[in-house]
Amino acid sequence: MKMPLIVQKFGGTSVGSIERIHSVAEKIIEAKNDGNQVVVVVSAMSGETNRLVDLANQIDCVPNARELDVLLTAGEQVSMALLAMTLHKLGYEATSMTGYQAKIHTDSNHNNAAITHIDTTPIEALLEQGQIVIVAGFQGVNHKGDITTLGRGGSDTSAVALAGALDAQECQIYTDVDGVYSCDPRVVKDSKRLPQLDFPSMEEMARCGAKVLHLPCVQFAWKHQVPLRVLSSFEKGEGTLISGEECLNDISGIAIQKDMVLIECALEELSSLISQAQLLGIEVCSVIEETERAAVVIKRDASTKLKLVFAEKIRNSEQVSLLTVVGSRTQDIVVSSHGLLSEGEVDVQHHLLQQQSLTLVVSPDQVDTAANILHKAYIVARETQGYLKKEVHFG
Amino acid sequence: MKMPLIVQKFGGTSVGSIERIHSVAEKIIEAKNDGNQVVVVVSAMSGETNRLVDLANQIDCVPNARELDVLLTAGEQVSMALLAMTLHKLGYEATSMTGYQAKIHTDSNHNNAAITHIDTTPIEALLEQGQIVIVAGFQGVNHKGDITTLGRGGSDTSAVALAGALDAQECQIYTDVDGVYSCDPRVVKDSKRLPQLDFPSMEEMARCGAKVLHLPCVQFAWKHQVPLRVLSSFEKGEGTLISGEECLNDISGIAIQKDMVLIECALEELSSLISQAQLLGIEVCSVIEETERAAVVIKRDASTKLKLVFAEKIRNSEQVSLLTVVGSRTQDIVVSSHGLLSEGEVDVQHHLLQQQSLTLVVSPDQVDTAANILHKAYIVARETQGYLKKEVHFG
Repeated sequence: MKMPLIVQKFGGTSVGSIERIHSVAEKIIEAKNDGNQVVVVVSAMSGETNRLVDLANQIDCVPNARELDVLLTAGEQVSMALLAMTLHKLGYEATSMTGYQAKIHTDSNHNNAAITHIDTTPIEALLEQGQIVIVAGFQGVNHKGDITTLGRGGSDTSAVALAGALDAQECQIYTDVDGVYSCDPRVVKDSKRLPQLDFPSMEEMARCGAKVLHLPCVQFAWKHQVPLRVLSSFEKGEGTLISGEECLNDISGIAIQKDMVLIECALEELSSLISQAQLLGIEVCSVIEETERAAVVIKRDASTKLKLVFAEKIRNSEQVSLLTVVGSRTQDIVVSSHGLLSEGEVDVQHHLLQQQSLTLVVSPDQVDTAANILHKAYIVARETQGYLKKEVHFG
Repeated sequence: MKMPLIVQKFGGTSVGSIERIHSVAEKIIEAKNDGNQVVVVVSAMSGETNRLVDLANQIDCVPNARELDVLLTAGEQVSMALLAMTLHKLGYEATSMTGYQAKIHTDSNHNNAAITHIDTTPIEALLEQGQIVIVAGFQGVNHKGDITTLGRGGSDTSAVALAGALDAQECQIYTDVDGVYSCDPRVVKDSKRLPQLDFPSMEEMARCGAKVLHLPCVQFAWKHQVPLRVLSSFEKGEGTLISGEECLNDISGIAIQKDMVLIECALEELSSLISQAQLLGIEVCSVIEETERAAVVIKRDASTKLKLVFAEKIRNSEQVSLLTVVGSRTQDIVVSSHGLLSEGEVDVQHHLLQQQSLTLVVSPDQVDTAANILHKAYIVARETQGYLKKEVHFG
């Protein structure tokens, strides 16, 4: 019988010190002793990537892309070696592998490369010897043998891609929170850890501001049907298991995007504004079309560039925040959410209803209040009173 | 006509900061603009290797050898990328290469690997495109694709091996001194930079304590007839050119080895002591055989181990220093050096005459005085008075 295989991914804070690397080693050993083959993906020690980027920026504000990848990948090389040493010290055979050695092939899009395929032969050979295999996250190699990186957060993608290629039972993403929450706990204090979540809901939450998982990681896992589990590096617990095609919860959670800008233009200019944003590589987070006016919402960081290029056609621009309620029944809460927020003196500037999400545009100083009102009504109350069902009944 | 090729090697202090990397880039550009193809070998930024070793030692005092190599090689990956970025910023095409990418093949002796061969195809392809090629020093790859290191100081060896494989016109070793000196300038203030030096003298000086070049680097260059030039990274100048088979100077220089230990034993135990040292991997710097007593001189660091193993057979051990006068006529100064040192109240415990060196064993508190006496007599005086020739005449 084939031994089950687990991929574990540890982020920068999880390997941020020798002590923490030791804790990580213990989690790996636990999985190994439970009878699993274990492949570990590590990020650079926290702070290291920023330190290296700072060095590069002292040379050039836009450093040569190929060389930036060479520079940044040194970060994971350090953490993976330290982790392998720790496992050896604790009596376990472990081998670290760079992106090149693990044959993680990517395209040549330096600083933001996409994984094209993984030849799992070298990893599988080591696993068969009983080794724990530690792979550098975030990095790969292109067809010329040049080092590439997957862009920030790419270690999650590395882990999921490896889990898919190795047909792993589960891809465990260890992080500094103990799972996916119904809302951002810094904003909504009674946010709850979700024991389970489906892929469509997780995708929508990641797209709309939940930072616990990067969107491409969720999309890859969904596409390849790799069950994902988000766990804490520092505490015990079951975390959140993300799997399954169907959105089973009426309301799964609420995602928040602060620091956004709404840019208004004439309705007939909207398509031109959207294509301009695409040309500049700016993600349009929300599009609003009404009878007389139109608007897009984009991240504030990107807004200066777009405003410069589109200058005279912009009617108005203002800072906003977005709240996105995710679930299978969001169409049923449009009216009530407007009502609840109005009662709470929150002004909803626009709303956008999609298949399993309702996005509300509010002013930045009201977003926390709004999140708490909706969380209380649709997540806390649902558990205690079946609130949503009632509305549907009357709706 | 083939363009001349120069290999330039920059050590850790030369690339120790972004500013210094900028100075290094200017030296490279100068060589490039002079019509040379340029291959650059870099060490890790000064302090970086020690920082990484410290991290490893927090985990294990003897870290796993394979993983230590993975860890340490991250150091050059950083410096080579920063240097390539700087060259790009200054308008020059440059490509960095890890030991693996540059196909520097080594044996599998982790932490102290030997280069077996270099496939120069990828470097030559880049040179033909007009690129400056920057290669990580100190590192290579074994037949399994594992990362290896050549041991401390291995960047010099990388540079010389590359210069040999690429049939370079010259291998320039940039360092924090502006050439090879007739003695250690910290000990003998009127030490002079030697504009030229032959391989046999340089080998003897490197073997006997001159730190400017590592012994394996000199030996490799000699064997492959690669002219070596030692230059300062911080000042302009011609440095020291090392080439040629023949020892042309009567006296080339004086090397100093402090922190040594002399271990005495019975004459009949000497060969056993030497083979014991070899078994322990301890270099025997000097062997003294007299009618009734015998002794070896080894580095103090290594002495505890040897003393433990050889314990009861040791008659005496004491801290000593070695002075080695190097040149083609050292046989002519045995008598006079004893005389001069005796006049200066330096007690010479032993001496050892070899083909082109005379090694004197003195007590650690007299080594500086002794070095100054001999340097004045044989190097300063030779220039001004032809001192040595006179002695030869009377000798």
